[in-house]
Amino acid sequence: MDYRIAVVGTGAIGSYYGGKLAAAGHDVHFLVRGDLSELRQIGLHLIEPEKDLRVAPVSCWNSTEEIGPCDLVLIALKTVSNAALAKLLPPLVHERTLLLTLQNGLGNEELLADQFGPGRVLGGLCFICVARTSRTTVVCSDRGHLSLGEFDRAPLPRTRDIAGLFQAAGIHCGVVESLALERWRKLVWNIPFNGLSILGGQIDTAAILRDKELSATALAVMQEVIQAARTCGYPLEMSAAGEQMTRTAGLGAYKPSTLLDFEAGRPLEIEAIWGEPLRRAHAAGAPTPRLQMLYSLLISLDGADKTARAARKGAAL
Amino acid sequence: MDYRIAVVGTGAIGSYYGGKLAAAGHDVHFLVRGDLSELRQIGLHLIEPEKDLRVAPVSCWNSTEEIGPCDLVLIALKTVSNAALAKLLPPLVHERTLLLTLQNGLGNEELLADQFGPGRVLGGLCFICVARTSRTTVVCSDRGHLSLGEFDRAPLPRTRDIAGLFQAAGIHCGVVESLALERWRKLVWNIPFNGLSILGGQIDTAAILRDKELSATALAVMQEVIQAARTCGYPLEMSAAGEQMTRTAGLGAYKPSTLLDFEAGRPLEIEAIWGEPLRRAHAAGAPTPRLQMLYSLLISLDGADKTARAARKGAAL
Repeated sequence: MDYRIAVVGTGAIGSYYGGKLAAAGHDVHFLVRGDLSELRQIGLHLIEPEKDLRVAPVSCWNSTEEIGPCDLVLIALKTVSNAALAKLLPPLVHERTLLLTLQNGLGNEELLADQFGPGRVLGGLCFICVARTSRTTVVCSDRGHLSLGEFDRAPLPRTRDIAGLFQAAGIHCGVVESLALERWRKLVWNIPFNGLSILGGQIDTAAILRDKELSATALAVMQEVIQAARTCGYPLEMSAAGEQMTRTAGLGAYKPSTLLDFEAGRPLEIEAIWGEPLRRAHAAGAPTPRLQMLYSLLISLDGADKTARAARKGAAL
Repeated sequence: MDYRIAVVGTGAIGSYYGGKLAAAGHDVHFLVRGDLSELRQIGLHLIEPEKDLRVAPVSCWNSTEEIGPCDLVLIALKTVSNAALAKLLPPLVHERTLLLTLQNGLGNEELLADQFGPGRVLGGLCFICVARTSRTTVVCSDRGHLSLGEFDRAPLPRTRDIAGLFQAAGIHCGVVESLALERWRKLVWNIPFNGLSILGGQIDTAAILRDKELSATALAVMQEVIQAARTCGYPLEMSAAGEQMTRTAGLGAYKPSTLLDFEAGRPLEIEAIWGEPLRRAHAAGAPTPRLQMLYSLLISLDGADKTARAARKGAAL
């Protein structure tokens, strides 16, 4: 099947995956905020470890009404903007439109399922190091892997179809049996490293691993998250913590997405990465002293940071 | 007995208690770093809730050799400078000199006992809101209470003597049966509030209490510290956590000393307040997930902050 594709949210993730699909010849339409002229004139420039890819022309628009109905919608908005989806998505959706959320954390599939019906919802886990360095440039330092799954059920033929679409576009893409299990597995990494990198003084993963106490904390948080996942019914192996510590050492001086958000003064994806897992663990009765502390500190820091920024802005006026 | 008194460490605490004793007519000598002329010309100005107190002249010196042997030494250095005591104290010490540490956290009496003998060591817990606002001015917004005790034994007649000295100088001062128990009791407050006030984005105690998640964290940290103290053999009541939360609400928008240190770019008293309690809890087998996380984050943040400051200094050159 030849999918008409929309990309909602053209940060690093949306631009990269949408750009790759467009470069592979697919009919891809990007929802973009603000001025479109540069993107329309120059196109997208994807810089990858092995090669550069130029995508032009790029079909980009300021509203989903202009894009119109699609067969597949990639949702790559920051989760802090999830409330906007109720208005953004309807113009893109026909009876059989599939909604694929590539967002971080827990709760995104549920939100789509509630609003648009569970039968059309898929999720993707992006294990990738990618950053948008300008409106038209995306730098991918590690192409990693994309894991696709169905919301709340095992893969269907269509799941493999879509994975094939990504594979044909040069993306390492696989299908997972249980999307929820894999979301928890990813959180085993994101919960400690995204949080500690900010709270530890805006440091990268190498600095966390170098610090004996902080890397012990990271490991302990991982074990706590694995135990919470197990209590919630997702049988992650306890050994996953040590494995992910080893894998992290291979990343070098990597800055987690939330640290980049914090440095840039963007709101943090606190609810998706820490809040929702905490609520589910709590409901299941799993003890989460470290997760609760991370969550509370990040909420407070995010709020204090906004207050400080607002004060600086006020002072500058 | 009429004590010849030295004050080592003339920040807020040393200046305030030393100043009060001097104003009451005692023979008090201050060890001061840097220029002495202003202090010698103007004296000390203690601003208290009910009244102002001017202390002049002030006997202040740049070395303990100039001060010479004393009967009582108040030690009010930041614990991060404890390594200096081995050189600073000997000129002050005669056979019967008493060493009274007014410092924060755990391990200070032990250090003095190791170096100068346990028989002369006392400790004091300062429940007070005081800040030095200039070289000659100390503002005390809540005179609070000073609790004195002997190192590793019950009070002696001399303990009550010294308490009487402070009382006669207008300081609410009492004697405690177990100094170690009371140090743990104070840590039940300092460990959460000093830590969360920094990590939560440089916020005061009122902001911590206002934040539902963060105040839940504070309470949980308190309970963990109480449990650790009990495991270490100090029978704090579990109800102390709730009581201290209530007391904290009465403090208003209070900034813990460690937050003031952080804001001023001074090193943080991490080992005395978090490190040593953590090590003792660990040795006793008490679980301390929150204390360990606070400790590791503060070490990292303190280090990252120093690096950032050094970089800014470098850039300014």
